[in-house]
Amino acid sequence: MTRQLHLNAFLMNVGHHEAAWRHPLSDPHAGRSARHFIDLARTAERGKLDSIFFADGLAVGAAVRHNTQGGLDPLAILNAVATHTERIGLIATVSTSFTHPFTVARAFASLDHLSGGRAGWNIVTSGSEPEARNFDLDRHHEHAARYRRAAEHVDVAVALWDSWEDGAVVADTASGEYVDTGRVHEIRHRGEHFAVQGPLTTPRSPQGRPVLVQAGSSEDGREFAARYAEAVFTAWQTLEEARAFAVDLRARAARVGRDPDLVKVLPGIVPVIGDTEAEARALAAELDELLVWDHGLAQLSGILTLSLGHADLDRPLAELELPDPGRINGNRSRYELVTDLGRRERLTVRQVIARLGGGRGHRTFTGTPEQVADTLEEWFTAGAADGFNVMAPLQPSQLERFVDGVVPILQDRGLFRREYAGSTLREHYGLPRPASAFAGGGTATSRPLTGTAATGTFAGRRLAAPVAG
Amino acid sequence: MTRQLHLNAFLMNVGHHEAAWRHPLSDPHAGRSARHFIDLARTAERGKLDSIFFADGLAVGAAVRHNTQGGLDPLAILNAVATHTERIGLIATVSTSFTHPFTVARAFASLDHLSGGRAGWNIVTSGSEPEARNFDLDRHHEHAARYRRAAEHVDVAVALWDSWEDGAVVADTASGEYVDTGRVHEIRHRGEHFAVQGPLTTPRSPQGRPVLVQAGSSEDGREFAARYAEAVFTAWQTLEEARAFAVDLRARAARVGRDPDLVKVLPGIVPVIGDTEAEARALAAELDELLVWDHGLAQLSGILTLSLGHADLDRPLAELELPDPGRINGNRSRYELVTDLGRRERLTVRQVIARLGGGRGHRTFTGTPEQVADTLEEWFTAGAADGFNVMAPLQPSQLERFVDGVVPILQDRGLFRREYAGSTLREHYGLPRPASAFAGGGTATSRPLTGTAATGTFAGRRLAAPVAG
Repeated sequence: MTRQLHLNAFLMNVGHHEAAWRHPLSDPHAGRSARHFIDLARTAERGKLDSIFFADGLAVGAAVRHNTQGGLDPLAILNAVATHTERIGLIATVSTSFTHPFTVARAFASLDHLSGGRAGWNIVTSGSEPEARNFDLDRHHEHAARYRRAAEHVDVAVALWDSWEDGAVVADTASGEYVDTGRVHEIRHRGEHFAVQGPLTTPRSPQGRPVLVQAGSSEDGREFAARYAEAVFTAWQTLEEARAFAVDLRARAARVGRDPDLVKVLPGIVPVIGDTEAEARALAAELDELLVWDHGLAQLSGILTLSLGHADLDRPLAELELPDPGRINGNRSRYELVTDLGRRERLTVRQVIARLGGGRGHRTFTGTPEQVADTLEEWFTAGAADGFNVMAPLQPSQLERFVDGVVPILQDRGLFRREYAGSTLREHYGLPRPASAFAGGGTATSRPLTGTAATGTFAGRRLAAPVAG
Repeated sequence: MTRQLHLNAFLMNVGHHEAAWRHPLSDPHAGRSARHFIDLARTAERGKLDSIFFADGLAVGAAVRHNTQGGLDPLAILNAVATHTERIGLIATVSTSFTHPFTVARAFASLDHLSGGRAGWNIVTSGSEPEARNFDLDRHHEHAARYRRAAEHVDVAVALWDSWEDGAVVADTASGEYVDTGRVHEIRHRGEHFAVQGPLTTPRSPQGRPVLVQAGSSEDGREFAARYAEAVFTAWQTLEEARAFAVDLRARAARVGRDPDLVKVLPGIVPVIGDTEAEARALAAELDELLVWDHGLAQLSGILTLSLGHADLDRPLAELELPDPGRINGNRSRYELVTDLGRRERLTVRQVIARLGGGRGHRTFTGTPEQVADTLEEWFTAGAADGFNVMAPLQPSQLERFVDGVVPILQDRGLFRREYAGSTLREHYGLPRPASAFAGGGTATSRPLTGTAATGTFAGRRLAAPVAG
């Protein structure tokens, strides 16, 4: 069989275009409704997509005046969606900077149980100062320190997922043995940031470990992805950049001893689809006309750590006095993407804002279903992508256009599944189900965890027998 | 209209009896299934109950060998249940000792949105050392310190719920104004445990503030409940104790300036129901025969902080050398309940274990629906309860018996609703919808939050206008 594409639907409120909420096809209040997201998930599942995905942010500021940022907890939405879908993967973003690994491990194990093995965790370190100020910090930890914490956080979460071996819940009604405590393990982690005894309170979930996803493209982000990520969401404007990234990431994964084929690289794309190219272009223009420039200036100012005003709108971005990239302690990838865009295409501030408003730096394709399918195939065949993170600019309408228009073409070309072959997200991605690092022989002696990680000590120990007489 | 009872279904795995999972009517694996809890919630909703409720624990130990402790994240289950029910309240336990108020405020606001105003938070401080060891601590914080943290935690969460005024999301498609930022407020909290700028990322939820529930009966717990709780789950063996508690709590609430009628006291009861008294007694005996004594000894040892063995089983509990209650830094209420029980009824260790296994210290009623209804009415009329936390020993079967047998009798007596009058948990409990503490006049000047709390400083501030030119 031909190598197969992976497609993820990146859901966001009523669509990825900043002005989506103002469009006549949108209900601007839908982002707080379970029904809206259940319907979107079902549409994506009708298209046999691998997964749906929610980003997350832990602060809103004045930009909310013109933007539907903020909303519900992504895990809350996915737990609701889980019971209204059968096959589609469910990926939520959770920050490692403001959470504890015990809490996060339990939350994803729970989603994995409720969904029958469809949970994925998009690991982020959270880049913004306003987020830090909601979580007891005056300033954010610097970039490298956040990734050190992230590594330890994930190591602990993985050990906790492994702390119950498969089959530990024997539920022997005759003997009264509910759990074989020889197959449940304390993890006894001691590290720089966390001290966690374990075991987790939740038995091992259908996937063993929920799928690990990551989205940063900085140097620290790439190293982290190479070590941990099974799928990588990324943002590139050109095929060449995307291919260079994929090649680099595969090489890094190989260097740390992983099979590069088990790291799926999924660039974000914003497909603006019409029955004709003219119709698609008209929709794109209609959306751009609904942008609020004050808001765009505030957003771009945040990314560039500058204060831009209306007077700057028609200046070429490359002519601004930009801070040194090394001094950006926030979303550094986003900073570089914007400045590259400005330089490469000689765009004005206004034009950059329109690009950001249309897809926040992700590649926008405007055209017919056939044209969109052509571009996806081109990137896929050229090794720039293992699939795509599909960011419909209007949701539901443009997600429906993608599912009903683009997917059948990809299926006809033999590039995408007509039916789900498996029932878990790991199966959709072609990833193996990991064994518990604690699973050993049937001996009664204690066995230390020798895991994936080097961020602290793990000293696994079987649960003691209960007090008895 | 007669004063009305409030009834909550306390859901736990396949039932509250320790041996429920061994009973032929149970699927011992059901506790990891969304469908199981959705069906239980629908049964409770069919009975027009006020709410369903999940306890929580953040550690499992060797006792899991014989006990279905551990399981899924209660909030995950309730987010799933929310979209399969229409009216019933959804109460989850979340600890203040191992969470951050921003995370918790967002989680409950999200559940409140997804459920259309049915969320409640059962606030616990978490008493056990194993829980502390899962969250970076070698020893747990002492009892009073945990309650200080809890008070500040709740103060911050309430301020965050209030940080979006009602109607702040104007979604004016014509002007492009999505949010009226004059109605969204930073909370600027600085306290002993937390520093939180705000606002919350989630707009104000249908109830304004999810309902606050509390369950501790110690001195610290009562003071906390008097100040914060809108419903109190409690455990008493006798009507007299329950009445004394209710009188005490109402007096404490009045002393801090609250209306005592807005604090609902709901003792836990375990109704073992049969068509005849003999059938009910046979079921109770059948369940007790399935108890595992090793497990019971381990549990009781934990509560008493003693090491008990089989040789102790037939000793009167009152003859054991018990530690001083002041030295118990865990679940002190549970310790006192068990030792009182041993003293008052001169029970042996074995008998106390059977009581604990049957209802963990809550009152067990065994009888026909009529007899159970009589006892509920007696407690209610005597002022010992505003309603009950119904802990069916086998779930679903005994919850169904309660809903189909006991509820109609209470309805016929005019003590319980035949239909829901409202759609939110606050409406079921007869509680007002609180105004945002930030809601003021229409002036443009900043206005400090003057809230419920004295655990730190709050200095509310409207969101600044976006950067503009």
